[in-house]
Amino acid sequence: MTLSSDVAAEQASFIDGVAGSLNGFLSEQRDVMATVSPDVAPLIGSISTLVTGGKRLRALMCYWGWRGAGGLAGDPDIVTAGCALELFQAAALIHDDIIDRSDTRRGGPSVHKRFSQLHEANGWALDSEHFGDAAAILTGDLCLSFSEESFTEIGPRARSGSAARRIFNVMRAEVMAGQYLDILEEVAGPVRDRAASVDRARSIIRYKSAKYSTEHPLALGGALAGAPAELIAGYSSFSLPLGEAFQMRDDVLGVFGDPATTGKPAGDDLREGKRTVLVGFALNLASEADAAYLDRVLGDPDLAEEDVARIRRLMVECGALDATESLIEQLSKDAFEALERLPLDEVPLLALGQLAEAAVSRAA
Amino acid sequence: MTLSSDVAAEQASFIDGVAGSLNGFLSEQRDVMATVSPDVAPLIGSISTLVTGGKRLRALMCYWGWRGAGGLAGDPDIVTAGCALELFQAAALIHDDIIDRSDTRRGGPSVHKRFSQLHEANGWALDSEHFGDAAAILTGDLCLSFSEESFTEIGPRARSGSAARRIFNVMRAEVMAGQYLDILEEVAGPVRDRAASVDRARSIIRYKSAKYSTEHPLALGGALAGAPAELIAGYSSFSLPLGEAFQMRDDVLGVFGDPATTGKPAGDDLREGKRTVLVGFALNLASEADAAYLDRVLGDPDLAEEDVARIRRLMVECGALDATESLIEQLSKDAFEALERLPLDEVPLLALGQLAEAAVSRAA
Repeated sequence: MTLSSDVAAEQASFIDGVAGSLNGFLSEQRDVMATVSPDVAPLIGSISTLVTGGKRLRALMCYWGWRGAGGLAGDPDIVTAGCALELFQAAALIHDDIIDRSDTRRGGPSVHKRFSQLHEANGWALDSEHFGDAAAILTGDLCLSFSEESFTEIGPRARSGSAARRIFNVMRAEVMAGQYLDILEEVAGPVRDRAASVDRARSIIRYKSAKYSTEHPLALGGALAGAPAELIAGYSSFSLPLGEAFQMRDDVLGVFGDPATTGKPAGDDLREGKRTVLVGFALNLASEADAAYLDRVLGDPDLAEEDVARIRRLMVECGALDATESLIEQLSKDAFEALERLPLDEVPLLALGQLAEAAVSRAA
Repeated sequence: MTLSSDVAAEQASFIDGVAGSLNGFLSEQRDVMATVSPDVAPLIGSISTLVTGGKRLRALMCYWGWRGAGGLAGDPDIVTAGCALELFQAAALIHDDIIDRSDTRRGGPSVHKRFSQLHEANGWALDSEHFGDAAAILTGDLCLSFSEESFTEIGPRARSGSAARRIFNVMRAEVMAGQYLDILEEVAGPVRDRAASVDRARSIIRYKSAKYSTEHPLALGGALAGAPAELIAGYSSFSLPLGEAFQMRDDVLGVFGDPATTGKPAGDDLREGKRTVLVGFALNLASEADAAYLDRVLGDPDLAEEDVARIRRLMVECGALDATESLIEQLSKDAFEALERLPLDEVPLLALGQLAEAAVSRAA
């Protein structure tokens, strides 16, 4: 076997373990819910559907952080940690889609949309949209509780006061703070200093995405395996720029990506009013007239296809897309250089390199 | 000192401990948030405001469950458990108020309303109402995480696999399921069997309220003190009927209560379309014309004051209010009889009796 096939085999076995653990966990929860009422089955059903897909980026970062710190392949604790991270991500997505008014997720209806469709299909009374949002708020809360329940099942390695528990707590608090900064920038951005918009956007992606998607999961895996503080710090010097590049790639795809590949309508980030690094560059590099136009139409839920096309052109012509791509490249370079400096065995080293490559150069 | 002043002194000391512990916990979290950005301060601020008030019913049930099972007064673990329950309740209220579109909470603005007022006061862009809801979803998520973080700080008594941890997990899952049944009944009730509406309403209050507000907190306190299974079962025979009576008292106050005392506009439960036991009795005891009228106007957010008055009259005249009061009386009687059978020392016995009395005969 080549080194690369070793990585692939080990990774596939871990992913299978996480999928199996998620199934087992949710099946137990389905039994608990069934004792309450058959009516509550759609809550677990929505969570099940959501955790079936996805790139499992966070679980994988956690796994290789564990392996890099000497944790053994096949240890049930790291599978449980992966399961907890996937449940946390599902909870975040459910609430995120309400906040962003996104009706689609991975090519299918988002959870709040599913519930409003259930309402309509049954001819129930009152407002189907409000019912959908309310049911999805509760489903997200349930999933957030499940994530923690699953994390606690790790046992002694995640006990009160442990390094792993501290990382799990900070991860949750920081991502919620980062999401708040994100929605705050949508509404407060237009009246704040335009020159600082790229800095604000970078701070937002650091908290809502980079720390949450790559830095904390990698550190969590390391901490569960008992990694020393220097290794955890080394992990951060790799995972933080990687996570920023990952989110900026996502933001570029949100405007320039192919809906058939991303599973989300093109331009939805603009309709939601997301003030990304890409938008920040455009506001500063475009002509005053174009910047004022952008400021005015961002967040218009009815933004037409031709406006989306105009914004795309404007972002290319003023150099905002290039500036963003350069920054992604620089951050990726920083990340890969930091990775080379990490004292890792060749299998986790190759695996993290592949994950990083996929994260920053993906098309979906 | 009389027995009653012993109870009052011990209870006051516990409540002080919980308030101090909440302050300390939230002050640490405020420091974590400050490292992210000064902009996120309102999230912690909203949670602080919310946990300052309230009846502390759940924390007190937990405390006396602990003391009844031989736990020592002044033990920091039971204070931490009380703190975790209060944070959970705050999280539930924040999301509940979005779901129920309630703009007031304890006489002040609810959290989503606070954030939409912040939006308006600052002249920010886009939709203030959507911003308020989105910010409150995130604040509730943060508070839910805090609740669990606090619960885990209990340490060994709440470790993975412990009886206390199992109760905490089931409590969270059941209350979310119960809240879903509640919003489902609002929309599906009108097309479901009217004759079963009281049964459905009783099942809803069992899960969304009775188990959560009284049964699980009491059992949790007992479990933390190492109570045997028979005592936990005995606790339930007291706390479950008590919790049902407590919620039915709340439902009666929601229609017949004095807004100056309850802190909520009269008739809001009707505008939200809550299908309570009281409503269930009315649908079955009123004339067909009155029942059809009630079915039609329930959930109308613009329900006029004269409609609320007409519904009140109708509920009195058809006997629905009497039927509800009788049921509250019966359940209270069951609860007090079960309490008398519990093998408790006189201090916890008196304290639980007083708590129960306050829960079912209150005016707010």
